[in-house]
Amino acid sequence: MTINGQMQSAQLTIGSILDYAVRAHGNRPVVSVEPGSADLWRYDYAGLARRTAQSANMLAAAGVASGDRVSSLAWNTHRHLELFYAVPGLGAVLHTANPRLSDEQLIYTLNHAESRVLLFEANLAALVERIAPALHHVETFIVLAAEPLAAGGELEARAYDTLLAQFPETISWPMFDENSAAFLCYTSGTTGDPKGVLYSHRAVVLHAMGASLASAFGLTPFDSVMPCSSLYHATAWGLPFVAPLCGAKLVLPADRLDGASLHELIRDEEVTFTGGVPTIWTMYLAHLEATRSAPGPLKRIMIGGSAVPRAMAETFKSSYDVDVLQLWGMTETCPLGVIATPTPAIAALGEAEMQDMLWTRQGRLQFGVDMRIVGDDGTTCAHDGRSSGALQVRGPWVVQRYFRQPSDCTDDLGWFDTGDVATIDSFGFMRITDRTKDVIKSGGEWISSIDLENAAAGCSGVKVAAVVGIAHPKWEERPLLIIEPHDGAEPAESDVMATLSREFAKWQLPDQILFGPVPLTATGKIDKKQLRDRYAGLYGADN
Amino acid sequence: MTINGQMQSAQLTIGSILDYAVRAHGNRPVVSVEPGSADLWRYDYAGLARRTAQSANMLAAAGVASGDRVSSLAWNTHRHLELFYAVPGLGAVLHTANPRLSDEQLIYTLNHAESRVLLFEANLAALVERIAPALHHVETFIVLAAEPLAAGGELEARAYDTLLAQFPETISWPMFDENSAAFLCYTSGTTGDPKGVLYSHRAVVLHAMGASLASAFGLTPFDSVMPCSSLYHATAWGLPFVAPLCGAKLVLPADRLDGASLHELIRDEEVTFTGGVPTIWTMYLAHLEATRSAPGPLKRIMIGGSAVPRAMAETFKSSYDVDVLQLWGMTETCPLGVIATPTPAIAALGEAEMQDMLWTRQGRLQFGVDMRIVGDDGTTCAHDGRSSGALQVRGPWVVQRYFRQPSDCTDDLGWFDTGDVATIDSFGFMRITDRTKDVIKSGGEWISSIDLENAAAGCSGVKVAAVVGIAHPKWEERPLLIIEPHDGAEPAESDVMATLSREFAKWQLPDQILFGPVPLTATGKIDKKQLRDRYAGLYGADN
Repeated sequence: MTINGQMQSAQLTIGSILDYAVRAHGNRPVVSVEPGSADLWRYDYAGLARRTAQSANMLAAAGVASGDRVSSLAWNTHRHLELFYAVPGLGAVLHTANPRLSDEQLIYTLNHAESRVLLFEANLAALVERIAPALHHVETFIVLAAEPLAAGGELEARAYDTLLAQFPETISWPMFDENSAAFLCYTSGTTGDPKGVLYSHRAVVLHAMGASLASAFGLTPFDSVMPCSSLYHATAWGLPFVAPLCGAKLVLPADRLDGASLHELIRDEEVTFTGGVPTIWTMYLAHLEATRSAPGPLKRIMIGGSAVPRAMAETFKSSYDVDVLQLWGMTETCPLGVIATPTPAIAALGEAEMQDMLWTRQGRLQFGVDMRIVGDDGTTCAHDGRSSGALQVRGPWVVQRYFRQPSDCTDDLGWFDTGDVATIDSFGFMRITDRTKDVIKSGGEWISSIDLENAAAGCSGVKVAAVVGIAHPKWEERPLLIIEPHDGAEPAESDVMATLSREFAKWQLPDQILFGPVPLTATGKIDKKQLRDRYAGLYGADN
Repeated sequence: MTINGQMQSAQLTIGSILDYAVRAHGNRPVVSVEPGSADLWRYDYAGLARRTAQSANMLAAAGVASGDRVSSLAWNTHRHLELFYAVPGLGAVLHTANPRLSDEQLIYTLNHAESRVLLFEANLAALVERIAPALHHVETFIVLAAEPLAAGGELEARAYDTLLAQFPETISWPMFDENSAAFLCYTSGTTGDPKGVLYSHRAVVLHAMGASLASAFGLTPFDSVMPCSSLYHATAWGLPFVAPLCGAKLVLPADRLDGASLHELIRDEEVTFTGGVPTIWTMYLAHLEATRSAPGPLKRIMIGGSAVPRAMAETFKSSYDVDVLQLWGMTETCPLGVIATPTPAIAALGEAEMQDMLWTRQGRLQFGVDMRIVGDDGTTCAHDGRSSGALQVRGPWVVQRYFRQPSDCTDDLGWFDTGDVATIDSFGFMRITDRTKDVIKSGGEWISSIDLENAAAGCSGVKVAAVVGIAHPKWEERPLLIIEPHDGAEPAESDVMATLSREFAKWQLPDQILFGPVPLTATGKIDKKQLRDRYAGLYGADN
């Protein structure tokens, strides 16, 4: 029997992060694009704490109690940020609904969450009006704006700012256990109903600390951080917590993610660190090139959600001296799993080789996320960079059970299977080679759809490249490559094939390339299910 | 009622840090001075894990069970480091006994801990032989060496390395709650019996994460870290955990802390980051000056335990471009409380002003340590840099109750009174102005003994300056300054007084200065109790 230590049982609650920022970095600015206005909203962490208290007082008066779910349909704004602290601060749960879901899926998540209050952006009012009749639990609608909605609509929704003004800027926060739920984030799989991941205060705080390590995001009070990954998507990689915990300035771009807007914010708000999915940075780079501009203060971009196109990373580094940090994670991991930052071992390989590793690996093993790869036979694969297997994770910010499910989603030893197939090399870097369900089996051998996509994406004129396995009467499956070209570009099939031939064996090459739009999911990933369905009979075999 | 999140209940255990280092940074070197030998011991985190498993297997075979206490009397070596992971890994508690305590106090701590095993350095054998007959619980003595003690002694002690060789390099570690005790560290107050602080796994891991933040110690895998604060003194500021957690190289200097040895280690092992009490760095600077050497790879030195003499910080910065980071903490806080790192707000004051703030404040408020100052009337003081009061702390790595005490050492709201008097300024920096018991009250006004000491320490020829309050028939107390000069130096009383007069009001100045050796406590701090006792009757009043 162990004996207990005698240290304080202070709980790891989300409120402790904002408390700290007020105490130590109260004057650091928080800046937000104001949707529907050219003005920026400006306050600081002390101001954020005051409005957060007002917001919580308002929600409590609206009947929100501990354990209740409150839903947001909102962009990366200061009001959404206030909800990130106000709702969990009350012991309630913020369900960050995803406005990119289909109406059907969105209604499903709001009903499944049993949310009593829905706070939404003014420019999402039409969406909310459309789905409102199907929401079974929502009693209160609040528009996240200074003014109520223009008259004429069906929806009765009061304005958030007007409501806030009626409540005090201080509050006596309730005390509760760190295992209490704080956020409810739904995954947007392409099959089946969305699944809810119920983040605890403990998981969010430990994740924020882990991401704030010098060897992870490495932010200091000198950074200015702009999350361009959505707040509704796994809490924007935890940046709304990481920034105040590190004393960094926080810049919120709302839904204005076009190249010109991002450039303006980066330049004017001295953004040093940002992050988002690759699509955003394609637009940003195009803007820089078209306007012959430079990223100014920007030093680092985290890119996740999909693999980083090599050409993008190279352009950022060679043309603008901006480091691209690839990272991998998922809603089920809060989301940080790995991030690609240098180590002496890979630096010793030389600059070119090091950059190549950083750009082609999802990232380096991080403290707090235990990770293994498991082969088809159930044995753990070696960390040799070649053996690939099912990627499994374990740790204090990894899901144990989906919301309202009767059983755990982990195995007996606590491992959660990510659905990805990966390798881990001797340098401790993990590389995703495929999604388990996207792996292509041809003539008894495996073909990595991601490797083919990355190679094709590097070809001139290619905007998005998607590879899916199509049933084949002789080979079981064959890879099919679908390319969406950049506007006005017309990449030639023969050129792409020639490029691929340099990296892949003949049997691994797609038999044909189709050109046309590539469908994306609600989180901006390639919708492979739709592609597989569309081309199922291409080779005359049943799927 | 809140609802519980559904994330994994992975426990924050010390073993998870070494597991991580093996997985992600297995080849990073760990280097140790081998006491009694000119050779250095070299392995890596993977090697450390193997010997740690052997050590735990050996201790378990020796009868060490969960909850048992095991004591070490050891320097900063690889063997001591192995015990840091092996003993807590078993669910047992490592009592890091302090060889600088008096025999009486040392015996008290070993008996109070009820340690069953004592592992000690060969060059402490005489001490152990002397106290062994008074130890009531120790059944097994092990010498931390490759060879047993030379024949002829009374003590039967087997050699650690010989024992280890008999045990396997792998182990199936037990699972236990993160609140289990891991370390027992005794404070060495100058009055009363030493008090034991029982660190939990949770506190040690959270402290290590907090210290590893980019805005705290800020270590990356590119750092090489040498802890020169003792492993037996609040776990050397957590560096044995911070280094592997960050993937940094670890260099252990044993008890060889003279200037020449440190210089050699820093140069040869490419040490970028080190830390210790001011005394060590005085010797190191003297060596650099005498040999006209430079610190080479060294970038940062953390200095704590006593206030940093300004001249020391200035020399490091201006002569060698080494940043001095002051930090404050105590055994009761694991020990990190604050650390002085820059922020944009103080950088905006200009380089000279910023350095001045960093050198004269103990440090900046850190995430995880809630801090307040309380005036005589019990109200919280403003963070204005002027209002001083009792410094109180709260948080997950702050003590709740001393070992084997019947009641908590915190107040109703969970605050622990540090016994220090401090100010906090609007930049979030804390400055210790005195120990509560060292404050001098003269003519109804307070005089800061630390401010006087710091000013006197800046005078030419002064090695140590100590100020104590002496009872005075008219003024209640008057400050007395005792100066220990550098070897061969003869600072003049009139020069010191002239310097002090520039900073202090006449009534704040000491009435006289005495020259002679200044007694230090077991942790290298000025022994003010001894000084007060020695000079109690100087002004003819009763203390």
